[in-house]
Amino acid sequence: MNKKFDHQALFRFTQSVFEKIGLSRSEAQQAADILITAELRNVSTHGLMRLPEYINLWKTGRITVTPRFKIVRETLSTALVDGGKGLGLVTGPKAMKLAIEKAKNAGSGWVAVRNTYHYGIAGYYAMMALEHDMIGISMTNANPLVAPTFGLKGMLGTNPIAVAVPANKQPPFVADFATAAVARGKLDVWEEQGRQAPEGVLQDKNGNITTDPSALKKGGALLTLGGEVEKGGHKGFCLTAIVDILTAVLSGANFGPTVVPTLGYVKDKTKTQDKGIGHFFGAFRIDAFQSADEFKSYMDEWIETFRNAPSIPGHEKVIIPGDPERTAEEKNRSNGILLSENTYRKIKIIADEFNLPFPQTKP
Amino acid sequence: MNKKFDHQALFRFTQSVFEKIGLSRSEAQQAADILITAELRNVSTHGLMRLPEYINLWKTGRITVTPRFKIVRETLSTALVDGGKGLGLVTGPKAMKLAIEKAKNAGSGWVAVRNTYHYGIAGYYAMMALEHDMIGISMTNANPLVAPTFGLKGMLGTNPIAVAVPANKQPPFVADFATAAVARGKLDVWEEQGRQAPEGVLQDKNGNITTDPSALKKGGALLTLGGEVEKGGHKGFCLTAIVDILTAVLSGANFGPTVVPTLGYVKDKTKTQDKGIGHFFGAFRIDAFQSADEFKSYMDEWIETFRNAPSIPGHEKVIIPGDPERTAEEKNRSNGILLSENTYRKIKIIADEFNLPFPQTKP
Repeated sequence: MNKKFDHQALFRFTQSVFEKIGLSRSEAQQAADILITAELRNVSTHGLMRLPEYINLWKTGRITVTPRFKIVRETLSTALVDGGKGLGLVTGPKAMKLAIEKAKNAGSGWVAVRNTYHYGIAGYYAMMALEHDMIGISMTNANPLVAPTFGLKGMLGTNPIAVAVPANKQPPFVADFATAAVARGKLDVWEEQGRQAPEGVLQDKNGNITTDPSALKKGGALLTLGGEVEKGGHKGFCLTAIVDILTAVLSGANFGPTVVPTLGYVKDKTKTQDKGIGHFFGAFRIDAFQSADEFKSYMDEWIETFRNAPSIPGHEKVIIPGDPERTAEEKNRSNGILLSENTYRKIKIIADEFNLPFPQTKP
Repeated sequence: MNKKFDHQALFRFTQSVFEKIGLSRSEAQQAADILITAELRNVSTHGLMRLPEYINLWKTGRITVTPRFKIVRETLSTALVDGGKGLGLVTGPKAMKLAIEKAKNAGSGWVAVRNTYHYGIAGYYAMMALEHDMIGISMTNANPLVAPTFGLKGMLGTNPIAVAVPANKQPPFVADFATAAVARGKLDVWEEQGRQAPEGVLQDKNGNITTDPSALKKGGALLTLGGEVEKGGHKGFCLTAIVDILTAVLSGANFGPTVVPTLGYVKDKTKTQDKGIGHFFGAFRIDAFQSADEFKSYMDEWIETFRNAPSIPGHEKVIIPGDPERTAEEKNRSNGILLSENTYRKIKIIADEFNLPFPQTKP
């Protein structure tokens, strides 16, 4: 059956769901925009399939739908924000706006957020800086699924980093990546397809390298980017740890293994208070360093140099970070968003529960 | 033959070499301190074996020994610096100090540097922030040796990132890593030992994965952190690209493949002007976010949690970034620094050339 939907229809549906659980109209719109942007950009692991998780956080009382956004401490270029147990989808955009405001005045702006929950795609926040001629940076910690080098258990999140850089004639550079060897969503896809995972991205509950894509659910863990030590896995550990420290230790949120899991198959072994997860947002005003025109032309040159680089015979061309997602977005805006059978089933249940009409499929 | 030397004797020798080529006494001391710190921390790839490269930059007129440190543009929290064709060993510490000064006032400080050359270990600069109760960040671009994902040629440096975070009872967290799958220095070691490189960190001149540690010298390239795409290599490309953009595009230095090589076996294919490489330094004042005491105790908790984590049977314990280097430094301060036969030969030639007495070996 055709599961293709108009993105605006899905947006309105998603907004209605968020309004039903009590978000204000404007915050429901903001949250829906982040999820639909993920769908448009083919990052469906951070799109509508996450709705049940958000609903569950609300049902179990872990989030409030009218959170207070509180600036706890600030300087000219920094702020610490308490998200008041709100969803990151609500708190994140406000925090990123604050970073941008700080950067307007001080050249750069940095906002750490605690007491917040899942914020969707990291790239959304980084891209908010682009229209201001700024470089945007966004990161978050997450459910403990990644084993530190030599570690037996998942203790760190897949902790994504996103960096968006404006250019002139070229579209912007937008890197947005989980810092683990593979994203958790990939494992689900491989499992569904009956495929094995590649060697060196997963370990089983005894710490042995495995290719079983269901290893996480059986007490295993993801490896850090780089995998085994001889291939640089300890660098991946450093990277994921840096994100954990900047997002959670600096903000006073729950770090690494003390993050209270939102996934059914991750046991909650935390003894600490739930202070949510942590986000960290940054913005650099381009013209704090060079004139915006000068920089953006130089960035064009960077992008063109890599886009036109000789590639390995038989392989694709070198891909500029952000290109595939932007191409997908252009296509999906007119052709519609294709939902997987699994996601469709999940959100149909939500539609029924809240007595909301589900959008018609697109012809 | 014993090649162990007292670190202070090596420091004085190194300072004399820098004075001989024309650095001021204090700048020669500063440059020597960075190289000897690398030796003490067992990062010998960035220690005395680099001296011939620096001398060569001077002989070929690519660096000046009395560079002008010029702030081109600045805001409350940022500055763009032109390094005036000085060595990074001279310009880097001044730029990092400027970032720290900015952070004192504005909460964070960020300094991009162009027209500069090799700056030694990235971690040295990040650690400068620790005594100020700040988080220090340092990165640089470098010789184009790393192939972007699907790319045939080395176009990016091994572009290291260093982040130093203060703790209270625990020693600081100090991550300092090249963002490629393996550092170039590792290849030399493997080649000397007649070992093969691991699968998935190197490609040959046709873009095929190879285990030949001399592949770089034969027109091959290093792979990005993560290696092949199915193991996350494209994320490694993003990471190395971000460092290239922040250090070189933002500062107006030579980026990626336009970096004028300092290695004999990398052909100079650049058609652009030599604007040096780029560095990027940052500092966050801890108490811009939380009281320093509160943060540092929480950081202790982070470090202890990971240090005491269960490890895979038969493996080492989880290593806190910075621990091995600090342990080495403590040991080498009293026991002396062991130079490789190769490094010894190289700097003995320099000693003879400048008519400087070479330190006696340590008993």
